[in-house]
Amino acid sequence: MIGTMTETTAETTAVRGQEGTAATGRDLPDEATARLVAGGWVLPTAVPGLLCHTAKFEAVLARLQAVLTAADPSASPGPVWYPPVAPRADIDRAQYAEAFPHLLGSVHALEPDGEPAGLDLSDDSARRPADVVLAPAVCYGVYPLLADSVITEPVFCDVAGTCYRHEATSELGRYRSFRMREFVTVCGETAAPLWRDSWITRCEKLFGEVGLTVSVEPASDPFFGPGGRFMKTSQIQQNLKFEFVVPVRADDAGTAIASANCHKEHLGERFAIRFADRGWAHSSCMAFGLERIMLALIHAHGDTLADWPDALA
Amino acid sequence: MIGTMTETTAETTAVRGQEGTAATGRDLPDEATARLVAGGWVLPTAVPGLLCHTAKFEAVLARLQAVLTAADPSASPGPVWYPPVAPRADIDRAQYAEAFPHLLGSVHALEPDGEPAGLDLSDDSARRPADVVLAPAVCYGVYPLLADSVITEPVFCDVAGTCYRHEATSELGRYRSFRMREFVTVCGETAAPLWRDSWITRCEKLFGEVGLTVSVEPASDPFFGPGGRFMKTSQIQQNLKFEFVVPVRADDAGTAIASANCHKEHLGERFAIRFADRGWAHSSCMAFGLERIMLALIHAHGDTLADWPDALA
Repeated sequence: MIGTMTETTAETTAVRGQEGTAATGRDLPDEATARLVAGGWVLPTAVPGLLCHTAKFEAVLARLQAVLTAADPSASPGPVWYPPVAPRADIDRAQYAEAFPHLLGSVHALEPDGEPAGLDLSDDSARRPADVVLAPAVCYGVYPLLADSVITEPVFCDVAGTCYRHEATSELGRYRSFRMREFVTVCGETAAPLWRDSWITRCEKLFGEVGLTVSVEPASDPFFGPGGRFMKTSQIQQNLKFEFVVPVRADDAGTAIASANCHKEHLGERFAIRFADRGWAHSSCMAFGLERIMLALIHAHGDTLADWPDALA
Repeated sequence: MIGTMTETTAETTAVRGQEGTAATGRDLPDEATARLVAGGWVLPTAVPGLLCHTAKFEAVLARLQAVLTAADPSASPGPVWYPPVAPRADIDRAQYAEAFPHLLGSVHALEPDGEPAGLDLSDDSARRPADVVLAPAVCYGVYPLLADSVITEPVFCDVAGTCYRHEATSELGRYRSFRMREFVTVCGETAAPLWRDSWITRCEKLFGEVGLTVSVEPASDPFFGPGGRFMKTSQIQQNLKFEFVVPVRADDAGTAIASANCHKEHLGERFAIRFADRGWAHSSCMAFGLERIMLALIHAHGDTLADWPDALA
């Protein structure tokens, strides 16, 4: 089997499909994922919800990213790319684990010194929480840069990164590891929801240009714990969060591929960012789930790029 | 501070530089990193060795990636991108943690069911090893796709991904999280070292075209443990590994920015990949440390892209 990864693995996967479950004991991908493999877009791994993306997928994704960059009213040159691990101290300051404890991927490692002689170092129980965690969202990397300071004018950021959610299910589109593009503002109380609303309008146009018919729906985050129900109710009552929903595979009624969120002063307060003399800064973010948008586009337009909208072909 | 992330944060960093250590208690970046911030290439985080990369950096990196793609003799359309987490079972099968226990980042998470009521779910000790770890290299994602099978012709793969090493030090260039581009072959015994040697020749030309004067040096991996010294000696004696060394910052005698490795049958045996009727398959990989190459280029060519070689400008 001489050839690129894509050809080889598609053949390998096809052969294994005929043989049933491979000798590795690896389950075959579900039908929706298998269709994406056949279309030359992804390769599966041993873990459902963890996919590799082919050169074909990545080329279209690069053009999607350019569409998003072009949409930004503050003329961003493109996103700042964040690493897939974030400082634990920053995620703790954002209180992420209190709101979403089951979704966090914590990183554990051996301490550099002091392992007793003879300890079985491949034993994972010897590992301790490290100073990083898997990044649950990219915007948490913005607030630390402004923390403990006073801003006098709105700040606008364009960021991207690979995020991790320890999801319990793995239907196609519910990734464990996925890339997010976020536009973020840290600003005053009035500006935060207005900026978010301007992005909702912008997205309705943008998604139309790439041939996706999305519905915009008020939503809430899947908060957890004793305060969770209150936070969820509060989000819905105050219309803080809106999701852009569209099918990402054949049997899907609709999946959120992007969300527009107003945080009010929650992150400003946690990171002690003041806005002039008006108290804690407010913030909003417009988050795009890049793989989910790609899945929605593939579902809408098919595997032949010549059939795709000009903006992405 | 109206503006893009880059401008804002450069100002913020500059302000904090004047104030000494920021109120967050975050240490200022070292001089070499501060120079890269000032040049508009990176942004620091709270963790040394963990950097964000600006749109300017990413645009040049994309052109570097294209140079590597163009160099591939098997006409790759570009790399398959792997996620930053890998199935734990695959990394265990490769026996990575036996060889490099201190470098592995293990992922721990709460189990979806069964947490007793009242357990403090933000307590990290409640988290258990998950089914994924942070990927230590990208090529470990190739062997599982061929595992427990027989290949009858050489396989060539072009892969990329973000990797993690739990490094104890963090001088500029020693990243905790970094991207790797790898060309990989799984093949017969004779072909593996010859393929690696062809890449060494190709790299000497390629690095010259982008204006880097590299030295090619026999090397060994930093193996650990009772078998470590033997494995290291074996690598050196058999000339299995070569590194491409060049300064990546002002006070650096030389850092390895890429390596050409022959694994003999080690990975073929661990993943039960047979080559025709000739026993275990052999493998080699040509690995490029993308951020380190970028640092070397910035060190060589400076901050003004008009001064850079045509291939990258």
